[in-house]
Amino acid sequence: MTAVHGANPLRDAADRRLPRIAGPSGLVIFGVTGDLSRKKLMPAVYDLANRGLLPPGFSLIGFARRDWEDEDFAEVVHDAVKQHSRTPFREEVWQQLIQGMRFVQGNFDDDAAFEQLKSTIQELDKAQGTGGNFAFYLSVPPKFFPQVVQQLKKHELADAPEGSWRRAVIEKPFGHDLKSAKDLNAIVHEVFAPDQVFRIDHYLGKETVQNILALRFANQMFEPIWNRSYVDHVQITMAEDIGIGGRAGYYDGIGAARDVIQNHLLQLMALTAMEEPASFDANALVAEKAKVLGAVRLPKDLSKDTVRGQYSAGWQGGEKAVGYLQEEGIDPKSKTDTYAAIKLGVDNRRWAGVPFYLRTGKRLGRRVTEIAVVFQRAPHSPFDHTATEELGQNAIVIRVQPDEGITVRFGSKVPGTSMEIRDVSMDFAYGESFTESSPEAYERLILDVLLGDANLFPRTEEVELSWNILDPIEQHWDENGTPAQYPAGTWGPVEADEMLARDGRSWRRP
Amino acid sequence: MTAVHGANPLRDAADRRLPRIAGPSGLVIFGVTGDLSRKKLMPAVYDLANRGLLPPGFSLIGFARRDWEDEDFAEVVHDAVKQHSRTPFREEVWQQLIQGMRFVQGNFDDDAAFEQLKSTIQELDKAQGTGGNFAFYLSVPPKFFPQVVQQLKKHELADAPEGSWRRAVIEKPFGHDLKSAKDLNAIVHEVFAPDQVFRIDHYLGKETVQNILALRFANQMFEPIWNRSYVDHVQITMAEDIGIGGRAGYYDGIGAARDVIQNHLLQLMALTAMEEPASFDANALVAEKAKVLGAVRLPKDLSKDTVRGQYSAGWQGGEKAVGYLQEEGIDPKSKTDTYAAIKLGVDNRRWAGVPFYLRTGKRLGRRVTEIAVVFQRAPHSPFDHTATEELGQNAIVIRVQPDEGITVRFGSKVPGTSMEIRDVSMDFAYGESFTESSPEAYERLILDVLLGDANLFPRTEEVELSWNILDPIEQHWDENGTPAQYPAGTWGPVEADEMLARDGRSWRRP
Repeated sequence: MTAVHGANPLRDAADRRLPRIAGPSGLVIFGVTGDLSRKKLMPAVYDLANRGLLPPGFSLIGFARRDWEDEDFAEVVHDAVKQHSRTPFREEVWQQLIQGMRFVQGNFDDDAAFEQLKSTIQELDKAQGTGGNFAFYLSVPPKFFPQVVQQLKKHELADAPEGSWRRAVIEKPFGHDLKSAKDLNAIVHEVFAPDQVFRIDHYLGKETVQNILALRFANQMFEPIWNRSYVDHVQITMAEDIGIGGRAGYYDGIGAARDVIQNHLLQLMALTAMEEPASFDANALVAEKAKVLGAVRLPKDLSKDTVRGQYSAGWQGGEKAVGYLQEEGIDPKSKTDTYAAIKLGVDNRRWAGVPFYLRTGKRLGRRVTEIAVVFQRAPHSPFDHTATEELGQNAIVIRVQPDEGITVRFGSKVPGTSMEIRDVSMDFAYGESFTESSPEAYERLILDVLLGDANLFPRTEEVELSWNILDPIEQHWDENGTPAQYPAGTWGPVEADEMLARDGRSWRRP
Repeated sequence: MTAVHGANPLRDAADRRLPRIAGPSGLVIFGVTGDLSRKKLMPAVYDLANRGLLPPGFSLIGFARRDWEDEDFAEVVHDAVKQHSRTPFREEVWQQLIQGMRFVQGNFDDDAAFEQLKSTIQELDKAQGTGGNFAFYLSVPPKFFPQVVQQLKKHELADAPEGSWRRAVIEKPFGHDLKSAKDLNAIVHEVFAPDQVFRIDHYLGKETVQNILALRFANQMFEPIWNRSYVDHVQITMAEDIGIGGRAGYYDGIGAARDVIQNHLLQLMALTAMEEPASFDANALVAEKAKVLGAVRLPKDLSKDTVRGQYSAGWQGGEKAVGYLQEEGIDPKSKTDTYAAIKLGVDNRRWAGVPFYLRTGKRLGRRVTEIAVVFQRAPHSPFDHTATEELGQNAIVIRVQPDEGITVRFGSKVPGTSMEIRDVSMDFAYGESFTESSPEAYERLILDVLLGDANLFPRTEEVELSWNILDPIEQHWDENGTPAQYPAGTWGPVEADEMLARDGRSWRRP
């Protein structure tokens, strides 16, 4: 287990067939002092280096207002890596990584700072052999996006020198409705071409999410039943047990639907429902996902088939939890949704008539993200009615987190009976089946950015199609009533249960 | 855990919905001193009583040549139960069971003994309230069948008195070819009507075998892919690690194909391949199984697509094992097969072109019985060729014994790779999923006989259809060559591997 760049047993085990090592390159992080940077980006860079997936001269430039020297920045990275990296800390990897670490101090309106960034890049191209290949990671609030991309343009940082590349990485939110998303996209694409822009939806970096495509299209068993002839409905759930924590400022006025459904859940839905792409190329993938999103049908009656909720005081994990309106920094009259459930259809030959139920919420029973494809009952049972009384519907459940894997629920005979049939499960657990541990989503995504592999990044089109789905729902909520209350620690408002009960169905209790 | 007849928590747990308790009745065992009787039948009767599934006055009559009194017989049963029963010994259950225990001493040609049997039955009808309902279990070599059934007829034991029933239970072999099977059936049916005859194929009493039907027809997920459009081939294996043990006299001249394929494996094949019956009634089941057996197509070239083998000396479980020809009591020139593998087709719309490979053998790698439905590869893969190099074919494996359950093999993404896909498995284990332990096959089958439930018993028609499949193969083997040799402890002769290799396939190593 001693591994440095270049000859790495970890890499050899996992990537034997497909060694994907980034070529000469560097990463510039704007907003390097933020939480995301310290908890996710810096550790991911180290983990990639430790796995031997970064080039020897890889460089990391931090850009922020702090009055730091390169050494101060390196120390912050060091601490972040020690605290949050997935793989063990190895001094020799660190010593190599630190060679390419630089800090540029400045505000986003500071031309001198961007000139400094430019000369730092040129210096690294010589000292570290980064070849002019740099990705700019905008880990900053969206209001700064226009300024940063304009500065990159002004100082000729966005245009790659001959034979090299420049890329921009953007974190959500990608707007808060269709109009603002379009405005934002216009600003970004004024400076960067579509294939230069990488939008991070970290859910798409998760192994289990990528496995949806492997499961569906590398196997022969699942695709034949993956359609309206056999599927009764699909449930996509992302439940959090925590409240809004320190995110009051960001969260209030945004809410659960914008924060989670617009990006994560609609992407999971697109991967679950899409047709097989002819190849695994980014354009082919985007085209198929966009086809699904474009075919999404909203419920006729939004007041019946959408539910928003807001957690009230309750109990979570044996501890008292305050209600949303009592959280620090929240307007006590806020109508922001901390829970959202919507029923969507897909108007195509494969899915017509099959409802997709999407739900997300904070302060729910437990933290879990899953996609459950629930099948119809068998059209005819040769068994006695009494024998199948306790038999539910077959289901394939893709467990995205935690405890990543797949569960298949089906009916089996109860031993010792004539022919009583009851639900049983079989399980595939990622953790048990592979010796390789799963990389963090950010490892995968940063590596993909450096490789220019755009498969796992939503494109402009998808973002706008998703807002197009959500906008009428948000508008309906704005104009009608207030969120239903649900006690912290429960599974959401009763209205959400009623929504499914009207269809003769019920939510899974995962 | 104290349970007696009538109010039994064990029964309540397992049969809550469907309490199947035998009505007033008794069982007569011919050949009561044999191995089968002591190891299987007597313990099964006790276990049924212990589970509360026998009527309070249930009676057991032993018939044999030994000079025993009722007490001697009871003692033999007592020892057999203590040694072999599945459920714990409980004195109160035993004390109730012993009330109805009788022994009749005599040869099969002894008219007085059969008159004695008759009067014993009449006595039990009065003393135990058995109501004239008796099953005659012929646990005797087939050569005695004619004599016993004729005696039952002669002494008016085969015909039930008004309002009661008489049944005959026969153990395999049901002949050794089509002609002898027909002769035997003629003899039996001269005395007993078809619905009075229960042929024991103890494999059909196994929970996992019964579960094939639950799996296929109570679920929605499996049946849509259970056909030639998705299935590449089916492998049905019954492997034993033991040699012929003390069965030389029976086994030599019979061989593996007659001993196992004709009954067990063709029954498993019929259950795997049959269409859904309209109901779970015995006639409907038999009709569907017979349709499959009648549609079986033999290979065109029997010398290529059938293989017989005979084990030679080798190693098994770390110990030296002698070859078949060196076993005690075996003719050193014997051509008897201890291994048989055959390739069959099913000429119907569902299975045309899908080979069913059946194999069985003694002294193989380990003891295992399984049905593996192996699926085609996905018709198109959007993934890189290199990404799916290690990906096999999807399979659903029904593990009949040991470790009863179901395994599904499918492809999953390898963590940390771009999109490398490898085989993984998910498992359903009977033992882990149900608190109820699985009854022995004989418990189920004896109870079914007493209830008159003929679902799990092959009928005349099926037996004859099965011989019809096997006869040309046996004849071909008789006329051509000798069995291929394979060392004890291996997985059979290389010829069997070549047989599948010619089809571009290989045997599973279970």
